[in-house]
Amino acid sequence: MSTSDIFIGETIGTAVLILLGGGVCAAVTLKHSKARGAGWLAITFGWGFAVLTAAYLAGGVSGAHLNPAVTLGLAVEGGTEWADVPVYLGSQLLGAMIGAVLVWITYYGQFRAHLTDPEIVGTPPASGDSGPGPVLGIFSTAPEIRNAVQNVTTEVIATVVLVLAILTQGLNDEGNGLGVLGALITALVVVGIGLSLGGPTGYAINPVRDLGPRIVHALLPLPHKGGSDWSYAWVPVVGPLIGGVLAGGIYNIAFT
Amino acid sequence: MSTSDIFIGETIGTAVLILLGGGVCAAVTLKHSKARGAGWLAITFGWGFAVLTAAYLAGGVSGAHLNPAVTLGLAVEGGTEWADVPVYLGSQLLGAMIGAVLVWITYYGQFRAHLTDPEIVGTPPASGDSGPGPVLGIFSTAPEIRNAVQNVTTEVIATVVLVLAILTQGLNDEGNGLGVLGALITALVVVGIGLSLGGPTGYAINPVRDLGPRIVHALLPLPHKGGSDWSYAWVPVVGPLIGGVLAGGIYNIAFT
Amino acid sequence: MSTSDIFIGETIGTAVLILLGGGVCAAVTLKHSKARGAGWLAITFGWGFAVLTAAYLAGGVSGAHLNPAVTLGLAVEGGTEWADVPVYLGSQLLGAMIGAVLVWITYYGQFRAHLTDPEIVGTPPASGDSGPGPVLGIFSTAPEIRNAVQNVTTEVIATVVLVLAILTQGLNDEGNGLGVLGALITALVVVGIGLSLGGPTGYAINPVRDLGPRIVHALLPLPHKGGSDWSYAWVPVVGPLIGGVLAGGIYNIAFT
Amino acid sequence: MSTSDIFIGETIGTAVLILLGGGVCAAVTLKHSKARGAGWLAITFGWGFAVLTAAYLAGGVSGAHLNPAVTLGLAVEGGTEWADVPVYLGSQLLGAMIGAVLVWITYYGQFRAHLTDPEIVGTPPASGDSGPGPVLGIFSTAPEIRNAVQNVTTEVIATVVLVLAILTQGLNDEGNGLGVLGALITALVVVGIGLSLGGPTGYAINPVRDLGPRIVHALLPLPHKGGSDWSYAWVPVVGPLIGGVLAGGIYNIAFT
Repeated sequence: MSTSDIFIGETIGTAVLILLGGGVCAAVTLKHSKARGAGWLAITFGWGFAVLTAAYLAGGVSGAHLNPAVTLGLAVEGGTEWADVPVYLGSQLLGAMIGAVLVWITYYGQFRAHLTDPEIVGTPPASGDSGPGPVLGIFSTAPEIRNAVQNVTTEVIATVVLVLAILTQGLNDEGNGLGVLGALITALVVVGIGLSLGGPTGYAINPVRDLGPRIVHALLPLPHKGGSDWSYAWVPVVGPLIGGVLAGGIYNIAFT
Repeated sequence: MSTSDIFIGETIGTAVLILLGGGVCAAVTLKHSKARGAGWLAITFGWGFAVLTAAYLAGGVSGAHLNPAVTLGLAVEGGTEWADVPVYLGSQLLGAMIGAVLVWITYYGQFRAHLTDPEIVGTPPASGDSGPGPVLGIFSTAPEIRNAVQNVTTEVIATVVLVLAILTQGLNDEGNGLGVLGALITALVVVGIGLSLGGPTGYAINPVRDLGPRIVHALLPLPHKGGSDWSYAWVPVVGPLIGGVLAGGIYNIAFT
Repeated sequence: MSTSDIFIGETIGTAVLILLGGGVCAAVTLKHSKARGAGWLAITFGWGFAVLTAAYLAGGVSGAHLNPAVTLGLAVEGGTEWADVPVYLGSQLLGAMIGAVLVWITYYGQFRAHLTDPEIVGTPPASGDSGPGPVLGIFSTAPEIRNAVQNVTTEVIATVVLVLAILTQGLNDEGNGLGVLGALITALVVVGIGLSLGGPTGYAINPVRDLGPRIVHALLPLPHKGGSDWSYAWVPVVGPLIGGVLAGGIYNIAFT
Repeated sequence: MSTSDIFIGETIGTAVLILLGGGVCAAVTLKHSKARGAGWLAITFGWGFAVLTAAYLAGGVSGAHLNPAVTLGLAVEGGTEWADVPVYLGSQLLGAMIGAVLVWITYYGQFRAHLTDPEIVGTPPASGDSGPGPVLGIFSTAPEIRNAVQNVTTEVIATVVLVLAILTQGLNDEGNGLGVLGALITALVVVGIGLSLGGPTGYAINPVRDLGPRIVHALLPLPHKGGSDWSYAWVPVVGPLIGGVLAGGIYNIAFT
C-alpha cells in the first residue's frame, strides 16, 4: 500500500467516521434537530453505521484502520509495517479534525440556536478549561464518574474487544476476501461495544475520535461553548492505545 | 442495459422506495396508525429498509439508482452513459409520484381521520402556499431552521456521503458481484445518514424523493391539507444534485 | 423436493415463525413480561427475526415459503409446481396453529395473570364473537379503522411488496446460491414492511399467520378471552392471497 | 480440533460473550451509566451483538459453541465428539466467570455508586440467599412469575429454537464455508429469541451464561448485594440442557 493511498484513505475515512459519529451526537443533543432526544440506541447505531460507511469507503484504499489503536494492534500482530504507522496516525488525526468541522457546518444553525438559548447555556464557566461545556459531548467523550484508573481501565477493556475482533478477521477470511462483510461485522461489533461497555466513559476506543474533535472544539468560534475539558483528554488517548497493543499481544499468544 | 429495463426498474424501484419511505412517515404521524409516535429510530430504519427493498427489487433490472444524485454521480464517474441520464431521471420522478399515491391509498382512512380531526388541523392556512401543512411531512422534507445556504449545505454534505459510498461499491467488489450485499450496505449507510445528518433538514438526499411526493401532495384531494411549501422545494432538489456531482468528482480524484 | 420435505420444512418453519412472531406480541402486551411496553420497533424487529429464524431453519428443507401468498406467487411465476401447492398450504396452516399453541405454552403464566387482572379484562363481552378480546392481538391482526375495502387494499399492497422481493431473489442470485443472505434480506424487508405499511391493519401479509392463530385463540381454554373477531378473519386471508397472485403476475410481466 | 484450541477459543469467546452480555445489563441498570433506562431493545440487541462478537472471535479457533446447550446439541447430532464435551463445558464455565468479573471491573464505579445509594438498596435482606438483590439481574436471570415447570418449559422452548438454528447452519452452508455470515445470522436469531421468548424468564438459553456469573455474584465483595437466588439457579441450567438435547434429536429425526 502506497503512502498516498494510506493518506487519502485514512483522511477521508476518518473524516466520514467523525462526521457521522459526531453527527449523531449533534442530532440527539441540539435544539431544532429532528432527532433530539432519540436516545442511546440512536447514538450506538449511529456510531456503528458511521464505522460501516467509513470502513466501506476506505477499505479498498488504505485498509480502513481509522483508529490508532487498530493501527498499533495490527503493527504488533504483524499485519501493518511499523514504518507506515506515522502516516496512518497523522492521517487519522487530520481526518478526525476535518470530520468535526463538517459536523459543525452540517449543524451550523442548530449549534447557534442551542448555544444562544439561555436555558441551555446558563452561566458560562469562568475559565476556558473548567469542565465539559454544553456541546463538548458532541465532540469528545466524558466519564460519568471521573476516576483516572477506572476510566482508563474501561477504555482498555472496550478497545481490546474491538481490536481483537478486527484482528480475527484474518482467521475468518478463509481466503474469500472477507471485504465488505468484514466492515458490516465490525460495525455491529462497535454497536455492541457501545451498548455494553459505553456506559461509564462513552466508549472513545479510538484516540483520534476523541482528540481530533476536542482540538476543533477548542478552536471553533462557538459562543458560550465552555471549556474543552483538557484534564480528561489524555484518558481516551492512552486507554485505547494500551488496549490496541494489548489486543495485538493477546492475539499473537492465543490465536496463532 | 436497455432503455426499457431502465424505465421498468427505476419506475418500480422508486415507487417502492417512496411507498415504504413515505409509508413510515405516515405510520408514525397519522392518527389511528399502530406505529404512531414510534419515533426517529423507526423513521430512519424504515427509510433504510425502504432502500434495501427497492434496491433489491430493481438491482438486477436497472442497477437501482432510484435517485438522480446517484445517476449524476455515476455519470460523472463514468459508470453510467450520459445518454441514459434522462431516462433514469424521468423514470425516477414518475416512480416517486406513483409511490406517494400508493402511500395515500395504503393510509387512506388514516389520512381522512387525521385531516378531519379539529385538534390536529386547527385553522387551515389562508393560501395554498403558506407553509407546511399537517401531513406535508409524510410527502416532503422541511428544515427545522429555514436558511437556504445552511439547508443546501447540509443536503450537499449528506448526499456526498451517500453517493461516495455507492461509487465505492466497485472498489469493494473484488470481482464477486457484490450484488445483494451491496444493497444491504447501502441501506444501512442510509440509516446512518438519517441518524447522523438528518437532524437539520430531514435528509432528502434525493431530488425525486422530495419533489415527486410534493407534486402529489399538491394534486391530491386531501381536505385541510394546507400548502405544499413550494418556496422550499428547490433546496432538496439542488442540494442533492450538487452533492451527487461533487461525489463523482471526489471519487475520480481521490479513489482512482 | 419431496412431499415429505415440504411437509416437514413448512410445518416446522411456520411453527417457529408464529412462535417467535406471536411471541413478540405476547412479550410486549402481557403483564409480568420483561418486554412489556417495548413498543412498535420491538414488534417489527421481532417479526423480522422470526422470519429470519424460520426461513433459515426451513430454507434447505422446503424452500421456506411459510406463507400461502408466497406459495401462490411462486406458482404463478412458475418456480413452484401447482401440484405441490396444497401440501404447502396445509403444512403452513398446521405449523401456524402449532406455533400459536407454543406461544401460549411459553407465556402460560403471563396469559393467566393478564386475563385474571380486573383492570385489563373489565366486563367481558356478552357473546363469543363481539370484537377483539384483550389478548386476541397476540394471535391475529385487527385493523385500526374497520373498512373492508381499505383493509383488503392495504394488505394487498403490503403483500405485493413482500412477494415481489422474494421472487426477485432469483434475479440477484447470480448463480452463487443466495441462500442464507436471501433469508436475511427477506427478514429485513419484513421489518421494513412492518414499519412502513403496518400502521393501518397490523400487516398480516400471510393468510395462515392470521387464520391459524385465530383458530387456536377460539379453541384455547383462556379465561375471559373475549371473541375471536371472525367477522374480520377473511380480510387477512383474502388480501394477502390477492397480493401474492398479483406479485407473481407483475413479476412475469415486468421483470422477465 | 485440539483440546488447547477448544480451551482457548471457548474460554476467551465465552468471556467476551458475558462481558458484553452482562455489560449491557449493567449499562441499562446502574446509576451513572450513560445507557441507564435504554430499555428492552438495547438489552436484546446488546446480547445479540455479544454473540456476534464472541462467535466471530472464537469461530476460527474452537467453533464457538460458547454454550453447553449448543455443545450437547452438536454431540447428539454428531458434529462434536462426546470426548470433547467436558473440555467445552469446563472452558465455557470458566470463560463465563471471567466475563462476569470483567463486567464488574468495567462498571466498578457504577456498581459502587448504585449499591451505596439508599434509595436503590433500601433495607438489605437479612440472609444471603433471600431472593434477587439489586444487581443480581446484571449477572443472572430471574423469572417474572416463579413456577419451576413453567420456567423450565419456557427455557426449553427458547433453547430448542436457538440450537436448531445453529445445527441448520450445515444445511445452508452449500460448501462455501458459511463462517462469518453464520455468526451474524446466529446473533440476529438470538436478538429474535430475546424479543419474542425472553419475556417470562429473561432467556438464559445457556447454562453457563447464568451459572458462571451467579457464582461470581456470590463471591464478589459487593456491598449490600443481597442474595444470589440459588433456589432458582438450577432452572436456567436444566432447561437449556434439555433444550439442547431435544434440538439435537429433532434435527436428527426431521432434518436429515
